[in-house]
Amino acid sequence: MTKPTIAITIGQAYYPRMFSQAAWDALDTFANVIHHEGPEPTNKDELIALIPEADAIITSWGVAQLDADVMAAAPRLQAMAHMGSSVKRFVSDAFWARGVQLTSAGIALARHVAETTLGLMIVGQKRIWPLGQLMREGGWRDDEKWESRELFRKQVGIIGASNIGRYVIRLLEPFEVTVLLYDPFVSEAQAAELGATKLELDDLLRRADIVSLHAPSNAQTHHMLNAARLKLMKDDALLINTARGTLIEEPALVEELSNGRFFAFLDVTDPEPTAADSPLRSLPNVVVTPHIAGCIENCNRMGELAVEELRRFFAGETAVYQITREMFERIA
Amino acid sequence: MTKPTIAITIGQAYYPRMFSQAAWDALDTFANVIHHEGPEPTNKDELIALIPEADAIITSWGVAQLDADVMAAAPRLQAMAHMGSSVKRFVSDAFWARGVQLTSAGIALARHVAETTLGLMIVGQKRIWPLGQLMREGGWRDDEKWESRELFRKQVGIIGASNIGRYVIRLLEPFEVTVLLYDPFVSEAQAAELGATKLELDDLLRRADIVSLHAPSNAQTHHMLNAARLKLMKDDALLINTARGTLIEEPALVEELSNGRFFAFLDVTDPEPTAADSPLRSLPNVVVTPHIAGCIENCNRMGELAVEELRRFFAGETAVYQITREMFERIA
Repeated sequence: MTKPTIAITIGQAYYPRMFSQAAWDALDTFANVIHHEGPEPTNKDELIALIPEADAIITSWGVAQLDADVMAAAPRLQAMAHMGSSVKRFVSDAFWARGVQLTSAGIALARHVAETTLGLMIVGQKRIWPLGQLMREGGWRDDEKWESRELFRKQVGIIGASNIGRYVIRLLEPFEVTVLLYDPFVSEAQAAELGATKLELDDLLRRADIVSLHAPSNAQTHHMLNAARLKLMKDDALLINTARGTLIEEPALVEELSNGRFFAFLDVTDPEPTAADSPLRSLPNVVVTPHIAGCIENCNRMGELAVEELRRFFAGETAVYQITREMFERIA
Repeated sequence: MTKPTIAITIGQAYYPRMFSQAAWDALDTFANVIHHEGPEPTNKDELIALIPEADAIITSWGVAQLDADVMAAAPRLQAMAHMGSSVKRFVSDAFWARGVQLTSAGIALARHVAETTLGLMIVGQKRIWPLGQLMREGGWRDDEKWESRELFRKQVGIIGASNIGRYVIRLLEPFEVTVLLYDPFVSEAQAAELGATKLELDDLLRRADIVSLHAPSNAQTHHMLNAARLKLMKDDALLINTARGTLIEEPALVEELSNGRFFAFLDVTDPEPTAADSPLRSLPNVVVTPHIAGCIENCNRMGELAVEELRRFFAGETAVYQITREMFERIA
């Protein structure tokens, strides 16, 4: 049997970041691999040049869209495995019209975001940031404003039962927390299966000691944490946003934070980067990081999953993380 | 059958911190509970006044030592459950001479320290602190000096297979790390059972991306990370000390950190607090926190374990976390 030809469309500068030796070895067992010879991801012309013989492609951040022109140049294309959080902008009507199978390794990226979120929950509760700052200013543990707390047995509000939200819930297991879940697409029974209590968003905000955003950015979620909702949050809570800046009405958040009401870790803002003179860069009760919650240096989990999904496809097995056009409404 | 009398020797100001309602309810099922009526832990006189009828006591930070005078006042004492990291200074020759059963809930405290350590490992690898600082200074993700990394698949060096060290190893499971373990009391087979590779300390320091201290403070471990050993650490590593400041030769550490060689989270220093003019308070690549890695606000796990251990004792079952005089050599 002839091995399928799989085109790697990412730049070779990103190979160590995306593919472990195990991923390359696995690819070799079932496919002929063709490479884009440049360091950067393929632009449209490069993609058209690369894929005439490709039975499948692996894509990631920066690769050109599979529009009508690209699809016309890829008569053999049957499957695409994408490595990244959202695959939406990489496909097109022409892509869907051809019935190409699409799978996403986003769940592997989700694990990284969830792991970072867990870290922020732990150190956020322990007040590592303000206490570290207090030590810099000559203090000790005598400042009652920043008394250390535990994540243990707190009420943790998860907004969005996305891949990330679900994996955060799994990682929270050793901490004996009560998980409160808001997700309009999840039933009470499904929430209970995840180990969570389904709540309306307002109720979640009133009860949660920690509020963590894991919803997609779309018209329904735009500014879901608006001024009125932010006011519902408990004094002294911890807000974590590793999802998208558009989920929060930022001027209202700045107002709450300026009043010292609670503490926030914001890995995402709207816009990014946040303005040079944004109070988010100077308030003592917020830490902004430059959108690094996902994998930055080691995304090998995604490469391994993309390869495994294509192996399944060509072995006649079902891709586990298949994406359909209908799913785009709910996911990012 | 008469219920045993159990004396709670901690101050009532600390009751919510140490005892959940579940702990009080469990106590009531098998014991008569007597209380010290003050807000602070019992001093020697108060302890002598409290325990003449006590069959067992629960102790914690700040309670007076069970010396010869106290033991003379407690003719019925059969068991003691201690809530804290080290029980050494609470007992005495007179205590051991009477054959009182001693159990420690320190393993419950260990879980908290391990959880904090995990959080520090995650955010330390992601560079949350320096990147947050960079954002404060007007930057974005363009500073190569502080590129974010993942904990995922790194080499994690655990120094000391203490309760804390062992629980850190368990918490690391989802991160697919390679655990390197140094502990002179653990065999290669025992290390393998824990999911770790046993190494000599020098080898561990040469290989580890993250070095985390979980050894007791004693003559053998004093300055175990001395100047020569600190020099073995990788450039760009992450050092975490949630154990004791005396484990590190601090002037040598200051020198390594001043050279920008690696990043450190120090929850403990020697002395504590560190001197007002210590470079540890000002260097950009170290965060000192005021000894808060254990439980600060919610130690209910310890209260519940102390109660469960006494329940076992009076039911004729074996205490799971019994402490013997011989064990003091190895533990903190």
